Amino acid sequence: MAIQLAELAVRYGCELHGDPDTVIKQVGSLETAVDGSISFLANASYRKHLAGTAASAVILREAFVPECPTACLVADDPYLVYAYIAADLHPASEPAAGIHPTAVVGSGTRIPDSCEIAAGAVIGNNVNLGERVYVGPNSVLGDDVEISTDSRLAANVSVCSGVRIGERCLFHSGVVIGADGFGIAQSPEGWVKVPQVGAVVIGNDVELGANTTVDRGAIDDTVLGNGVKLDNMVQIGHNVIIGDHTVMASQAGVSGSTRVGARCVIGGKAGIAGHLEIADDTVVLGGASVSKSIVRPGMYSSVIPAEEAGKWRRIVGRLKRLDDMAGRLKALEKRFNKKDTGSN
Amino acid sequence: MAIQLAELAVRYGCELHGDPDTVIKQVGSLETAVDGSISFLANASYRKHLAGTAASAVILREAFVPECPTACLVADDPYLVYAYIAADLHPASEPAAGIHPTAVVGSGTRIPDSCEIAAGAVIGNNVNLGERVYVGPNSVLGDDVEISTDSRLAANVSVCSGVRIGERCLFHSGVVIGADGFGIAQSPEGWVKVPQVGAVVIGNDVELGANTTVDRGAIDDTVLGNGVKLDNMVQIGHNVIIGDHTVMASQAGVSGSTRVGARCVIGGKAGIAGHLEIADDTVVLGGASVSKSIVRPGMYSSVIPAEEAGKWRRIVGRLKRLDDMAGRLKALEKRFNKKDTGSN
Amino acid sequence: MAIQLAELAVRYGCELHGDPDTVIKQVGSLETAVDGSISFLANASYRKHLAGTAASAVILREAFVPECPTACLVADDPYLVYAYIAADLHPASEPAAGIHPTAVVGSGTRIPDSCEIAAGAVIGNNVNLGERVYVGPNSVLGDDVEISTDSRLAANVSVCSGVRIGERCLFHSGVVIGADGFGIAQSPEGWVKVPQVGAVVIGNDVELGANTTVDRGAIDDTVLGNGVKLDNMVQIGHNVIIGDHTVMASQAGVSGSTRVGARCVIGGKAGIAGHLEIADDTVVLGGASVSKSIVRPGMYSSVIPAEEAGKWRRIVGRLKRLDDMAGRLKALEKRFNKKDTGSN
Repeated sequence: MAIQLAELAVRYGCELHGDPDTVIKQVGSLETAVDGSISFLANASYRKHLAGTAASAVILREAFVPECPTACLVADDPYLVYAYIAADLHPASEPAAGIHPTAVVGSGTRIPDSCEIAAGAVIGNNVNLGERVYVGPNSVLGDDVEISTDSRLAANVSVCSGVRIGERCLFHSGVVIGADGFGIAQSPEGWVKVPQVGAVVIGNDVELGANTTVDRGAIDDTVLGNGVKLDNMVQIGHNVIIGDHTVMASQAGVSGSTRVGARCVIGGKAGIAGHLEIADDTVVLGGASVSKSIVRPGMYSSVIPAEEAGKWRRIVGRLKRLDDMAGRLKALEKRFNKKDTGSN
Repeated sequence: MAIQLAELAVRYGCELHGDPDTVIKQVGSLETAVDGSISFLANASYRKHLAGTAASAVILREAFVPECPTACLVADDPYLVYAYIAADLHPASEPAAGIHPTAVVGSGTRIPDSCEIAAGAVIGNNVNLGERVYVGPNSVLGDDVEISTDSRLAANVSVCSGVRIGERCLFHSGVVIGADGFGIAQSPEGWVKVPQVGAVVIGNDVELGANTTVDRGAIDDTVLGNGVKLDNMVQIGHNVIIGDHTVMASQAGVSGSTRVGARCVIGGKAGIAGHLEIADDTVVLGGASVSKSIVRPGMYSSVIPAEEAGKWRRIVGRLKRLDDMAGRLKALEKRFNKKDTGSN
Repeated sequence: MAIQLAELAVRYGCELHGDPDTVIKQVGSLETAVDGSISFLANASYRKHLAGTAASAVILREAFVPECPTACLVADDPYLVYAYIAADLHPASEPAAGIHPTAVVGSGTRIPDSCEIAAGAVIGNNVNLGERVYVGPNSVLGDDVEISTDSRLAANVSVCSGVRIGERCLFHSGVVIGADGFGIAQSPEGWVKVPQVGAVVIGNDVELGANTTVDRGAIDDTVLGNGVKLDNMVQIGHNVIIGDHTVMASQAGVSGSTRVGARCVIGGKAGIAGHLEIADDTVVLGGASVSKSIVRPGMYSSVIPAEEAGKWRRIVGRLKRLDDMAGRLKALEKRFNKKDTGSN
């Protein structure tokens, strides 16, 4: 795909500096871009690479135009404009319509001609696929699964029975949707499994990273709203409900029956306990542990940045004796107050 | 499946209030149950949904009978009785006996006629399956694997060579059993792999969540006792031994050669270091880091609940200077004692 | 495989005590070894098992020779010598050359006769494999993948298009290489996907544990150096660069664009934030959170060992009020100083 810079400027409403006929064929980073590439400057820490870039054009904020050695597009949000242009230059491949002869398809299943079912895929009974759905090699869909138009499953994805998936979703390899939630009841003879009879319902434009897992509901469904984006190895417990446009970075986890609001940003390795409510627009920083509901949107954290280990050991030692320290401080205050009073 | 309420009351020894002929067809939550459903009230925070429930019957403790607008079964442990009744109403499907024509089976392998080997499954040589074992689509069993009666592997499960699995186990999609443990020895030229020649031995009634991994032993075996239940993405290192009926929530991890006792409850994201011994009946709360053996059963934690980020930053700043604070407190005590003494 | 002890002593330059004709057939642990086994003593906590061992030979340090009841090999680093000998006794199986009839191979793909492509494997177009590459059952290679000689992929591995893998690598089941990085840009209508057009480049002798994920670069490539060893469920974000011989234990994670130096050791569950630089030879202890670049190699930690939960709750209470405590201490110091001055 090759596009003239002038065309990109018009398409995304950017002011253009430099030669409007510049031909853009691909994206590149400021540091390694070659001729014919378009790059962007969003994070100020990469500004040092601007002056020396070999990109043919750069998307940047107005303030950086004077430093730019090549053509540029001016945008308030260079990263967003970059996202659009990168998608123009590198469009996702269209499904190659057809069902591979090694794929296995159950009975009562509806697969439009525009779908691609790759080699080794196994699709259960009474499955219903929309137009242009792509099911990658060796992925497995259980019975009664529904997937809407233009959704794509990479290789080795597992979608269990009864899961419903919206339009334009993208699930990466190793994703497991609809496995049983962790429902067990204690008995004198050990733990008794609680059947997990709910399903998973996933909205439109949802992206799930590699090896992410979303459990089916115990009774009612687990729900991911529209535009939800989960990174790799995120765990979503049974009956969790995640609001529209909420994103979670890798290795985050949400325990059962918690409701996470819309437009939340949950950092990597953050953990949210079960049966909580997290307000819309909440930000949980990476590694934080949320054990109570969050009513007021804002930014939350409980992570401690790493220290040199010897110093850290001493801090932990002090921490473990904080109670003692507090007691001594109180005693001192008391003695001081008494003495103070006494000496007057 | 439809069962009369009277029959359920007898089966599980519950007192029945209301019409014994009530027909129960399915489970439902208090909030969303429809006619013909049985629900339960175990967690007091759901009590608010009792008065308005449309369930045909509810399992609950005696104290809640007066508030129940419909028929009910009285039980000391409503969740446990619910687990049994839900299993009656929603029994796990029986394997559809047979080997799918696209499955691949090695030589010397014994598969009883009652087993179901799904499409795309690959089973190695000298594998030995018990009656009614189910191997899901695209799952892979290495050579010399043994799986006992009534165990079920979902889609895309990987069981490596020599692994032995008990009866009535259930492994969800993406589970990997018997991959090499993380055994490496340092040499001047870099890390040298230590062959992992042990196996994994798994007891009866073990459930493993989606994408959970259990490594094979370095020399001796990794062992999961009877009734062990692991949630999604739990990591079990080589030569770990887990006692009977111990459960772990998602994203927990146990490092190599640690012995976890029986009936332990390990919370989500908890980490247990290597070469430790954890006493029977120990509870480790979610997110805690266990770095020493636990001799005395009890409840253990080291997780800090998230705070508003600005406040948390100040706390961390204080924490990092605790040593200084302790020193100042000590100095103050000294001066005070001296002064005190001096002024007498 | 059977080898005389004298031969092993010569091969690895060890002093031999006992019968040089002792025949060694396998490895064993001190505790459970049977006749014909060689064991080792490296970790002092296993010394208690030395006197009673039934191993035919033990690899140990000179200091332990007097306690050894059987033949022994003396080594400065018994674990390293054990690693070499274990590999001699238990060599990895050679690929059984050939392409299984159920495997699917794309066009333009080059597979040397010495390779083994197992049942159900799916290999894309224009893939290039070196000699003796093994692709396990139901593993999937996208288009344009390159894998060099003697590398091995276990069952159910996913390698996305354009990934390049060096020699003698070993990827365990469930590994996903080259899925899209987590690149999203905020727009008024929700998150917009940023195409991930970089690849993943993996050096020689890299081992990746079960269900580990390595994302493809956003523009440039994600890079793992030679000799890198990652345990299970490790997450490597897009554009991360990991230096040679760095190792990471299970459930560790590195966020996008971070450069981890050579010969680093990253503990289990440790998290490293994005856009950082970690110096060569840095050790990050298990569970630590690294949120700033590390310039000085050394050992870093931020993990708090678990406490009895009641005591821990009190500590957390104190921690959350540290600011108040610091203020009171300061006030006390002030009053004391004033009084001290005033009373002179």
